[in-house]
Amino acid sequence: MKLATLKDGSRDGQLVVVSRDLSLAHHASGVATRLQQVLDDWNFLSPQLEDLYATLNGGKARHAFPFEPHQCMAPLPRACQWAHASGYLNHVALLRRAHGVERPEDTHPGLLIHQGGSDALLGPTDDAFFFDEDAGIDFGAGLAVITGDIPMGAGPDQALDGVRLLVLVNDWTLCHLEPVELATGLRFLHSKPATAFGPLAVTPDELGENWRGGRVHLPVCSSRNGRQVGATDAGKGMDIPFGVILAHLARTRPVRAGSIVGGGTVSHADAASGYSCIAEQRAREMAAGGHASTGYLRFGDRLRIEVTGDDGQSLFGAIEQRVVGPGGAGAPPAGPGVDADTLG
Amino acid sequence: MKLATLKDGSRDGQLVVVSRDLSLAHHASGVATRLQQVLDDWNFLSPQLEDLYATLNGGKARHAFPFEPHQCMAPLPRACQWAHASGYLNHVALLRRAHGVERPEDTHPGLLIHQGGSDALLGPTDDAFFFDEDAGIDFGAGLAVITGDIPMGAGPDQALDGVRLLVLVNDWTLCHLEPVELATGLRFLHSKPATAFGPLAVTPDELGENWRGGRVHLPVCSSRNGRQVGATDAGKGMDIPFGVILAHLARTRPVRAGSIVGGGTVSHADAASGYSCIAEQRAREMAAGGHASTGYLRFGDRLRIEVTGDDGQSLFGAIEQRVVGPGGAGAPPAGPGVDADTLG
Repeated sequence: MKLATLKDGSRDGQLVVVSRDLSLAHHASGVATRLQQVLDDWNFLSPQLEDLYATLNGGKARHAFPFEPHQCMAPLPRACQWAHASGYLNHVALLRRAHGVERPEDTHPGLLIHQGGSDALLGPTDDAFFFDEDAGIDFGAGLAVITGDIPMGAGPDQALDGVRLLVLVNDWTLCHLEPVELATGLRFLHSKPATAFGPLAVTPDELGENWRGGRVHLPVCSSRNGRQVGATDAGKGMDIPFGVILAHLARTRPVRAGSIVGGGTVSHADAASGYSCIAEQRAREMAAGGHASTGYLRFGDRLRIEVTGDDGQSLFGAIEQRVVGPGGAGAPPAGPGVDADTLG
Repeated sequence: MKLATLKDGSRDGQLVVVSRDLSLAHHASGVATRLQQVLDDWNFLSPQLEDLYATLNGGKARHAFPFEPHQCMAPLPRACQWAHASGYLNHVALLRRAHGVERPEDTHPGLLIHQGGSDALLGPTDDAFFFDEDAGIDFGAGLAVITGDIPMGAGPDQALDGVRLLVLVNDWTLCHLEPVELATGLRFLHSKPATAFGPLAVTPDELGENWRGGRVHLPVCSSRNGRQVGATDAGKGMDIPFGVILAHLARTRPVRAGSIVGGGTVSHADAASGYSCIAEQRAREMAAGGHASTGYLRFGDRLRIEVTGDDGQSLFGAIEQRVVGPGGAGAPPAGPGVDADTLG
């Protein structure tokens, strides 16, 4: 099934069920008013939502209304955890080379997980506000899971069973701030402003065979100012699948229901698939012996990220955002407390 | 006023108001049932709670009952953000020296902020469960603020105005895992299991003049197996006060209501004040030219952390935890989903 959260003036928004073709929505108020409620009590509540979803798809729901993505908040506008892994080692290797940081020989291979801020997550059409246009504004297209409870010490299979929903992610980054943060021994605080999410959270069954082994085997498509720049298969280049990522996260503490865990910016060594983040494209250009020619985003730039299923339907809806700044193109995102959000 | 969250079988617990002398509690159900609710709507709800607090302290509350700390969850059992800063540079310097990591010359001075997991926060008397007794189990006594909304770009004064509550913190760490994580360029994922909090969240006015300039000017006392090991003034050694910490956190994204932001393990160059974390004591012993003689915690060890005000009252109540392991001393913490919490 497909779920979304509509703006309603509250901090957590209002849960709706959305038809598979994204045309209709229906309040779930007989069952739950917030997505976190459902995640807290999945076994009891989700079957009731599935029934509503079936009725909605069958054209028999009595109080359906048109689904409007611009009315959406992030599926979880705030969450108790947003942790993103680097499941795509090609991406990690390219960026390390660009930063001049080689992986130490004697360390564990593979998995890096970054704990992000989860108190202020952006909706799919919220403007992305930045103070400084020259901070190296970059996007990062990828996918994440939203979990139920995963016990401490769970292995990859058990951890993968804890996946409840899949979401589309745009991991905004201020690239010029990263080298400073790396040098101080930190990892990504200022360089990681609020992350944005696609409008829909979908159960894995919506992907059919394209969800297998803890990977999504579909292309994530990114467009910049209307021109496609990337169509990268999210499964092909994913060295570390979600089950392993979740088990890694749960190694010394439990993972609680409503945790959002990202797989990383999708990436593949085959440059023909384009790019899902500008820093990676620039790293490729430099590695090819040239200089980095692809510029970072500027105020007024528009970005669109989407995944289409085998049936041609948009799986998660689209992230469609504009880059804005103080007194510049566009205004800060509307929503609860927005007047208090920025001093721009 | 003093607020707490009682276990009630739910994930967010039940909000109560607690008398200043910690003897009585009273449900706040006429006003709010969860602390997050109050933080979401502080200006409207907190005055009503203050009225109840005054009535309770005056002995006039009709449905007061004895306050039992062991019935408490963390004030926020799960939060949308738990970020801890290293406001005590003495602590940072000692540990860096012990790890053999010098601060790079050309980097910004001072402030490190670590984003922690906030989906599973421990209550004051919850057992602290670890799989491995030899992982270098360490505690870390300190203080944190819980905020209202702080806008992106707020300066230190405005950010300090965003402080709503103060809490006591025990920042558990698995010290032997830290060097590996530092070497991979990460900061503290596995080495930071669930953090524990004292039973009470208190408004800054409860500290009177001992809250000034964004610091708490009172000693944080730590005892190990009944013997005091530390009584460190939380204000004296705090190089970077809370206002600056919060402004730093809010530099490129807003900080939302219900964010828990720690000031760091309290620390002072004067070794006579003892220690608030074992790693620091070991670092002192090694710096003095010897070897580290103070051992890390073992299964069955008990830890107590408390702050007493000028009037001799316990300000935040006490953190009183036991270190437990698989099949070892004690059982994993009781609470929602605990059977699913660990595989120990």
